[in-house]
Amino acid sequence: MATQAEAAAMRHALALAVRGLGFTSPNPVVGCVIVDATGRTVGEGYHQRAGGPHAEVHALRAAGDRARGATAVVTLEPCNHTGRTGPCAQALVDAGITRVVYAVGDPNPQATGGATTLRAAGVDVEAGLLAAEGEEANAAWLTSVRRGRPHVTWKYAATLDGRTAAADGTSRWLTSAEARADVHRLRAECDAVVVGSGTQRADDPHLAVRGIEGARQPLRVVVDTRGTAVRPGARVLDDAAPTLIAVADDSDDAVAAPSGADTVRLPRAAGGLDVTALLAALHARDVRSVLLEGGATLAGAFVAAGAVDRVVGYLAPALLGAGPAVLSGGGITTVTEALRLDMTEAVRIGPDLRITATLATKEH
Amino acid sequence: MATQAEAAAMRHALALAVRGLGFTSPNPVVGCVIVDATGRTVGEGYHQRAGGPHAEVHALRAAGDRARGATAVVTLEPCNHTGRTGPCAQALVDAGITRVVYAVGDPNPQATGGATTLRAAGVDVEAGLLAAEGEEANAAWLTSVRRGRPHVTWKYAATLDGRTAAADGTSRWLTSAEARADVHRLRAECDAVVVGSGTQRADDPHLAVRGIEGARQPLRVVVDTRGTAVRPGARVLDDAAPTLIAVADDSDDAVAAPSGADTVRLPRAAGGLDVTALLAALHARDVRSVLLEGGATLAGAFVAAGAVDRVVGYLAPALLGAGPAVLSGGGITTVTEALRLDMTEAVRIGPDLRITATLATKEH
Repeated sequence: MATQAEAAAMRHALALAVRGLGFTSPNPVVGCVIVDATGRTVGEGYHQRAGGPHAEVHALRAAGDRARGATAVVTLEPCNHTGRTGPCAQALVDAGITRVVYAVGDPNPQATGGATTLRAAGVDVEAGLLAAEGEEANAAWLTSVRRGRPHVTWKYAATLDGRTAAADGTSRWLTSAEARADVHRLRAECDAVVVGSGTQRADDPHLAVRGIEGARQPLRVVVDTRGTAVRPGARVLDDAAPTLIAVADDSDDAVAAPSGADTVRLPRAAGGLDVTALLAALHARDVRSVLLEGGATLAGAFVAAGAVDRVVGYLAPALLGAGPAVLSGGGITTVTEALRLDMTEAVRIGPDLRITATLATKEH
Repeated sequence: MATQAEAAAMRHALALAVRGLGFTSPNPVVGCVIVDATGRTVGEGYHQRAGGPHAEVHALRAAGDRARGATAVVTLEPCNHTGRTGPCAQALVDAGITRVVYAVGDPNPQATGGATTLRAAGVDVEAGLLAAEGEEANAAWLTSVRRGRPHVTWKYAATLDGRTAAADGTSRWLTSAEARADVHRLRAECDAVVVGSGTQRADDPHLAVRGIEGARQPLRVVVDTRGTAVRPGARVLDDAAPTLIAVADDSDDAVAAPSGADTVRLPRAAGGLDVTALLAALHARDVRSVLLEGGATLAGAFVAAGAVDRVVGYLAPALLGAGPAVLSGGGITTVTEALRLDMTEAVRIGPDLRITATLATKEH
């Protein structure tokens, strides 16, 4: 049984871990707190950026000799893998740590086995402390490891009656400046931002992160099946962030990548590109989390492919009564087939409401 | 300036007042707390039902002789009107009350003037303490007095993507049992529940209040322009609550009221009955608050008529991607014409979310 001091340390380690969101991909976010026999914290740290030291290493450095005989509380099973840094399990043993408590096991076949290494060295190991919170903190990374594709957050903005624009197509500005700023925070936490050709044509979006100091720019992805939506001079072609244009593998060879973007050729599916192939291509490029920003048709294709893990909706307190719907397609014809989610949060963002919901049944 | 004790007394008076919601119509809800010179409460009461004693009378009875020299804190300006009960302004004077603090002035031409009567009798009168809260508690009644029509709450239930049913029309059950029970609370607070012919045909709804002990049944209203939607044996024709069927004034004389319902003949407007005429007919029947339950077309007609004061949406954490929209019509063609509201509440009801929004600009 974990002690109260260990539970408190885990809560703090989780808070440390999520500071890394947006900076550690393709690695997970991890926090570590080292407590001595009296329950006092003697070192702490978190994985700050991909390629940098792991959380345990930061915490061990801070603890120094005080790590000897102490307990390491970690949000993820310490790695057993020698990558750009050495294996953390061995580092903990070498530092004299005698007990390790972690929240979530590492499902990554290349890194798992840390608990076994620790136990073999005589360390007392306990798994599963605040496991649900640990899962939530690493939802994107865990999904990508378990499912072999990036975690997908579908973001939309709509009126209370589910319209994204008025009958004449106008939509500026349904949601508030506060809500639009919040979307940049979402973008900064994801590795890629994806839009379809309809949104590209209608909005000429920029898709980079603005207004967040030190943010890492996501890969901008335009799903442009016929290769005709991204025109020279499009805003996604500037140098604010990298850009990838996904076109059909049977599209005209003359559809070359516009200057400022890479192109990937993918198989077609009904109504557009094959979403599963798109996600596989992004996964291969180390994309672990995707923010799907629109439009309704592309979102419907993701729903049909079973590729929406989380929904974030910005609801403006307004009614339109006509205009395009938020979501179109998805292959659902009767109510028992509805994609069911769990409402996890509803918070006011300026005058608007942000609703977060996640898949009701997770595939683990 | 009101004292802190008076502000606390007003908060309590407001809490008392809203206990009357659903029972006092066509009267307002009112709460009254009597505090003595030391700030101690010596009597309290609220208007419990139409025809029963007013809040001030309950509170004066409870206070007895301790009302002499005391302050009456009332959520609404004391009435100056002899109706089924005597004027409260005079009752306060007779009981020896020397100061009256109220939240909201009485706009009813038949009852206003209480403050003048009190001042003429030498009572110190202060208006406007917690006025916004006082307005909110009596939103339905104040709207009906100021606008000469009932206050209208449009209630809907939908998925996150704004659908009320799947593509094949199925909708049982998108929202939870908890949300459906909450709708009965809304019905019990309103004087009338209104549906259109489409909902009548598709759902054969019952529209009465179930599961709330002692609730007053609302008037069930079906807007059935052609007089063909309510068939013999329809559930609204049972004796659980009174029923009114609104038909077009040019509809066939053979369209008689089915047994178990009254009929009212009203002028037509584009797409159905004239909503303003419908509300006037309901107002004439002492209906002060309407719960508009559906469907999308009727709600659109109410929006077009400027006759939606409040929106209560039950959002199920689900996606459909196809199926009927929540709201259809309303005459809005471009985003600057959107009906703007203020989000006043978002609360979890079981797995669903209940969102309440009110008109952003009130006509006072």
